[in-house]
Amino acid sequence: MNLFLSKISALSAKTMLCVGLDTDLKKIPSFFAQTPQSLFAFNKAIIDATHDLVCCYKPQIAYYSAQGAEEQLQQTIQYIHTTYPEIPVILDSKRGDIGETAQMYALEAFERYEADAVTVNPYMGGDTLIPFLNYKDKGIIVLCKTSNPGSAEVQNLLINGDPLYQAIARKASQEWNGNKNILLVVGGTHYEELHQIRRCVGDDMVFLVPGVGAQGGNVREVIKKGGNLKGRGLIINSSRGIIYASTGKNFAEAARVEAQKIVSSLYLA
Amino acid sequence: MNLFLSKISALSAKTMLCVGLDTDLKKIPSFFAQTPQSLFAFNKAIIDATHDLVCCYKPQIAYYSAQGAEEQLQQTIQYIHTTYPEIPVILDSKRGDIGETAQMYALEAFERYEADAVTVNPYMGGDTLIPFLNYKDKGIIVLCKTSNPGSAEVQNLLINGDPLYQAIARKASQEWNGNKNILLVVGGTHYEELHQIRRCVGDDMVFLVPGVGAQGGNVREVIKKGGNLKGRGLIINSSRGIIYASTGKNFAEAARVEAQKIVSSLYLA
Repeated sequence: MNLFLSKISALSAKTMLCVGLDTDLKKIPSFFAQTPQSLFAFNKAIIDATHDLVCCYKPQIAYYSAQGAEEQLQQTIQYIHTTYPEIPVILDSKRGDIGETAQMYALEAFERYEADAVTVNPYMGGDTLIPFLNYKDKGIIVLCKTSNPGSAEVQNLLINGDPLYQAIARKASQEWNGNKNILLVVGGTHYEELHQIRRCVGDDMVFLVPGVGAQGGNVREVIKKGGNLKGRGLIINSSRGIIYASTGKNFAEAARVEAQKIVSSLYLA
Repeated sequence: MNLFLSKISALSAKTMLCVGLDTDLKKIPSFFAQTPQSLFAFNKAIIDATHDLVCCYKPQIAYYSAQGAEEQLQQTIQYIHTTYPEIPVILDSKRGDIGETAQMYALEAFERYEADAVTVNPYMGGDTLIPFLNYKDKGIIVLCKTSNPGSAEVQNLLINGDPLYQAIARKASQEWNGNKNILLVVGGTHYEELHQIRRCVGDDMVFLVPGVGAQGGNVREVIKKGGNLKGRGLIINSSRGIIYASTGKNFAEAARVEAQKIVSSLYLA
């Protein structure tokens, strides 16, 4: 099995929670200095407080790029790799471009930042995903049905009676997945679609599910509709609902409490 | 008229050429040191040699991100702004994400890098483009039909008999364009599609056309099929065909010669 997926699988007996590190200087506690360095200090505290509750972390690159904090993104990923080597890191960057450029984006994710997985956009076609897919031990997480309110506008357009997201799910699982390293993004706000896509791609495909927490998705419903036969096969992400649980001195413990709430709802009968 | 589009329009009587700055340390002349600093030195020479032949420049952010060269990307854009203020800069980053994150990507493009326009991916839906579109004076360039060989795989899927790219063109021009700041990416390798999309969106929409040069698109055909009634409405991009025209000491003059070839074929009767 692919290295990223085997790490996720090893942890998923214990937890399917992913904590999203969408770290914004404007939202972290005000006692942090307003400098990029604070992004790493904040992340480190969150990671130390939650590491035994997660199956992975997912920094969203836009937050670091907007704030000129490439170094802090790198530090964050390195910190996870060295301190908690069993926990893989997804770089959420939703990249997509023609082959030559996609190759540079693959370098960005896997060589520069040493991420274990990356999110990619399928609009440009399967050929543009090849430079990512060639990294056989990495996870390549293809946008299928996203969690935002307007995702239906394009993704639910009907192709011969089936929505576009289903065509993407089918291509991803049947045509693009020669290296068995593809996962799908399926929003936790769309229960019916979770169910449809699971039926379409079978039990082996793992879904990254954003939209739980601040965006409103319910964990129990997500597992019921999107889980495989064993109720697994999911990476359930919460970002703001966990990392911004408190703006006080106790922000890290508060994050742990929120993470714990999700984890304890994961495996209820 | 939107500031970006009015700059393009002012220059388009003279030239519709855009030079893509896809600058790769492995491909620039070997007498440059293998350090990120060389990316700016190379770009500066290319810009100085071609500035009177272009209507804009288009750095592709993946090249700078992969090489840890954010500073050199910033320097390049600043150099154009201060030395040739009439020439706008497109940041080619093909971003797309949910609202909160899209807002960070908009900051990346317009505040951090001070680009005049940015490329965006429509797969997640029109709501995810709003943070970009809210910058009324910037150009928001929506991927429609891309230049890569496999672009048909997703973009030509039929929705009620019409290809997906046409649905995107229609939405972009009729539903998302309240601020009149949208442009479309239409690959210069797809003549028939250029023609169809021009008919679909009318004469006012400007197309960014990659795929001319190294990817094989022919400039005369692009203008014939994709131009508006006046043979304008296009930003014709060539990257590798121009900037890597020579790996010798004469690389900048060689780039100028290639750029000149395209410009002189632009307005033939």
